[in-house]
Amino acid sequence: MIIVGELINATRKVVKTAIEAIDSKVIQKLASDQADAGATYIDANAGVFPGKETKYLKWVIDNILKSTDLPVCIDSASHKVIEDVVKYTQEKSDRIPMINSISLEKKRVENILPIIAGTDLKVIALCMDEKGMPTTVEQRVTIADKLINKLVQNNVKIENIYVDPLVQALSTNIVFGTAFLTSVKNIMTQYKGVHTMCGLSNISFGLPQRGFINRNFMAMAIANGLDGAIVNPLDKKMMATIIAAETLQGRDEYCMEYLKAFRAGKIS
Amino acid sequence: MIIVGELINATRKVVKTAIEAIDSKVIQKLASDQADAGATYIDANAGVFPGKETKYLKWVIDNILKSTDLPVCIDSASHKVIEDVVKYTQEKSDRIPMINSISLEKKRVENILPIIAGTDLKVIALCMDEKGMPTTVEQRVTIADKLINKLVQNNVKIENIYVDPLVQALSTNIVFGTAFLTSVKNIMTQYKGVHTMCGLSNISFGLPQRGFINRNFMAMAIANGLDGAIVNPLDKKMMATIIAAETLQGRDEYCMEYLKAFRAGKIS
Repeated sequence: MIIVGELINATRKVVKTAIEAIDSKVIQKLASDQADAGATYIDANAGVFPGKETKYLKWVIDNILKSTDLPVCIDSASHKVIEDVVKYTQEKSDRIPMINSISLEKKRVENILPIIAGTDLKVIALCMDEKGMPTTVEQRVTIADKLINKLVQNNVKIENIYVDPLVQALSTNIVFGTAFLTSVKNIMTQYKGVHTMCGLSNISFGLPQRGFINRNFMAMAIANGLDGAIVNPLDKKMMATIIAAETLQGRDEYCMEYLKAFRAGKIS
Repeated sequence: MIIVGELINATRKVVKTAIEAIDSKVIQKLASDQADAGATYIDANAGVFPGKETKYLKWVIDNILKSTDLPVCIDSASHKVIEDVVKYTQEKSDRIPMINSISLEKKRVENILPIIAGTDLKVIALCMDEKGMPTTVEQRVTIADKLINKLVQNNVKIENIYVDPLVQALSTNIVFGTAFLTSVKNIMTQYKGVHTMCGLSNISFGLPQRGFINRNFMAMAIANGLDGAIVNPLDKKMMATIIAAETLQGRDEYCMEYLKAFRAGKIS
């Protein structure tokens, strides 16, 4: 399972403050804590600093690369920032970054596709187009199909594509859980080698005991084939759920990862 | 979701002792506690009393019928006991019982099918034949197909059949989780109207934190379409998982059951 640690995001006050104060320690600890907890990528987002986003994001990434062995997930709404920061990151390290994200929105395709085309960069592909968020399975799979084909035709290997079918709040429509789950199942079955990825906490918006809902939804998504997630790796209960669900889904030979996690006190 | 409460089973010491002492209070409390906790059937098993099984099972069922509004699940290895006790139960109450169980073993089919044929009895159909426990999805679905066809040809309505694909320990073979999950999916997709059912605690045999494994497996099974389970309804965490997973699976309009359970302190 690809675990993208989501904590280094400047919309979070602790991160914003650390960036403004050029406080390397805070960023490095957030990076190494997430790595220790099982992250396989560290997301980096400095989108709240217009004009200074590129500069700050480079500094954040410097700190992540210094304090962990992990690749980064470059997270920006601006293609110019992404282009600059990808180059910088690849000069600094041979760890191949992930781009967060492309979608089927016309401008996003025009601007992001040239950065990724013909490279080994990983990319999160959001199931979203000009019409906004899809609501049905059919809409999601249709967008996924177009995105995957467009990327593959532009020499992006299918195994570098992480399709995010987008989770919507169950409290607004009771079918939004299965719309997501079935989309994951269909995408993973129809496009051999592709991955799926999501940040799933939207599912529980408006409901009590959100963490409990989120964890159950994670197990159900893994049961449908999900093999990537953007999460808080310091959420021990969520990480334990992911480990158990992966084992139950047959991805953990001899249950070794589960037993290792148990012995390390991660299942409790 | 059909929840068969499993606690009134004479292999459990408290139940065996209560039966021997003709202690109605213990049995009635076990029945009403399970009903209060969300059971929809109460399993009754007195199999540890050879020679006295029929007599004791009737007495147990009397107590269940007296103390709850629920139908019983008549659980015995002996077809003679089942035949006798079904008649007795239907004289006592118009709640239609469930039979636990039929399988594709030759003798079991010969003996149990006549009891069920042409009736409105519910029946648990174990995916097991002369060769014993199936290990692959194909074996499970093949047995399920033969069982469903045999029952339907004998005028059992498909909606009265609860197929149990049988859970085996993940620690003995890492594919046993997905073998079960995929069987549930295939059976629920291929036979419209049929139900699936299981006692799933075998999955965690030999692993630490069994309850945690069992709960995640339940959520994953519901994500594959499972709509019945033989569980301990007094296991609050398991029941909370079932409620959340059912909501996430789109079976709970406006999330009403989840919210009701939360307000009643059942989600914590």
